[in-house]
Amino acid sequence: MDETISIVLFSGTDDKLQSAAVLAAGAAALGRPVKILLQYWALEAFKAGNVAADHGLSAEASEASSAAVAARAGKGNWAETLRQAKELGEVDIQACSLSMDVLKLEQSDLDSLVDGVEGVASFYINAGEGQILFI
Amino acid sequence: MDETISIVLFSGTDDKLQSAAVLAAGAAALGRPVKILLQYWALEAFKAGNVAADHGLSAEASEASSAAVAARAGKGNWAETLRQAKELGEVDIQACSLSMDVLKLEQSDLDSLVDGVEGVASFYINAGEGQILFI
Amino acid sequence: MDETISIVLFSGTDDKLQSAAVLAAGAAALGRPVKILLQYWALEAFKAGNVAADHGLSAEASEASSAAVAARAGKGNWAETLRQAKELGEVDIQACSLSMDVLKLEQSDLDSLVDGVEGVASFYINAGEGQILFI
Repeated sequence: MDETISIVLFSGTDDKLQSAAVLAAGAAALGRPVKILLQYWALEAFKAGNVAADHGLSAEASEASSAAVAARAGKGNWAETLRQAKELGEVDIQACSLSMDVLKLEQSDLDSLVDGVEGVASFYINAGEGQILFI
Repeated sequence: MDETISIVLFSGTDDKLQSAAVLAAGAAALGRPVKILLQYWALEAFKAGNVAADHGLSAEASEASSAAVAARAGKGNWAETLRQAKELGEVDIQACSLSMDVLKLEQSDLDSLVDGVEGVASFYINAGEGQILFI
Repeated sequence: MDETISIVLFSGTDDKLQSAAVLAAGAAALGRPVKILLQYWALEAFKAGNVAADHGLSAEASEASSAAVAARAGKGNWAETLRQAKELGEVDIQACSLSMDVLKLEQSDLDSLVDGVEGVASFYINAGEGQILFI
């Protein structure tokens, strides 16, 4: 099982970013290549200087657990998990070219975690026959 | 790589509809068959006469980027992307029979983009061993 | 086609829980093993005594259809669908160990629908080459 795990990362709340980071790190720890394509709100969270900001939680977050989840996922902890995943294995993070265009961003506007910009076709080709998650 | 890309399309906000449409168009451009199963809020967005309405954005949408994303995705632009994807390749859009029942809809209530009504079992069988995304 | 269908169940609103339950039941009916990993808000919905509570709907729920969707999915109907899926086939529900830690939960705090606690690595290994959905 050395198949790629690919993630279309669309959401930009801290809880979903952390879930994506944990799924990426787990795959990397198993020696599987990981490919992440950033769209819309996720892309915005990866803007330079924005990673450690408060990105809120999903609208459904319960009052009872929000503080605990934010403490684990927030303040850029998800980005730290991704940084560790990159040290652990092959984790490639690409900004979706269409989303870059919509949000009027250049690669120099993005955090150094982002390895490049690519289109949806390249994403599919790199995914091969491996699993794709939309988060 | 001629494997089917299947999408369970649950969400009905313009940003997620556009993301799904772009992922469908990209797969169609690569010559891969695309199967979309419409549930709940996505199904509602595909009601006849409703496609070009304002379906809002995800709750997490940032103030800074909402206008740009809505301009690209809204006013039925996602449906136009799907129409182009259908011209480009094999894109089949089915309404989930259970969701049709819950929302008390008949196929004649839906936009002509929708090719038919099917159950979850048919969806899995048509997906074969290809990837499935839940959006 | 006896490949496993795996679901990372992150969301805890009644509409998404019901969608996940229907996708699990459909796969079970086709004889396919189903593996569900509960994270964050989904995990909270599976707390003992909490299943039949009102978990709300996605933020995008339309006024026109909320009552119909809540009637079908709410009051623990999604859990009933999962119970039936377990009678029908092989449906295994695991709590994500990291989310258990964040929410300070023990397995004894969870509904009997949950079969155990596991990490992301085990989840991937059990998923094999089968499809993975993130809901």
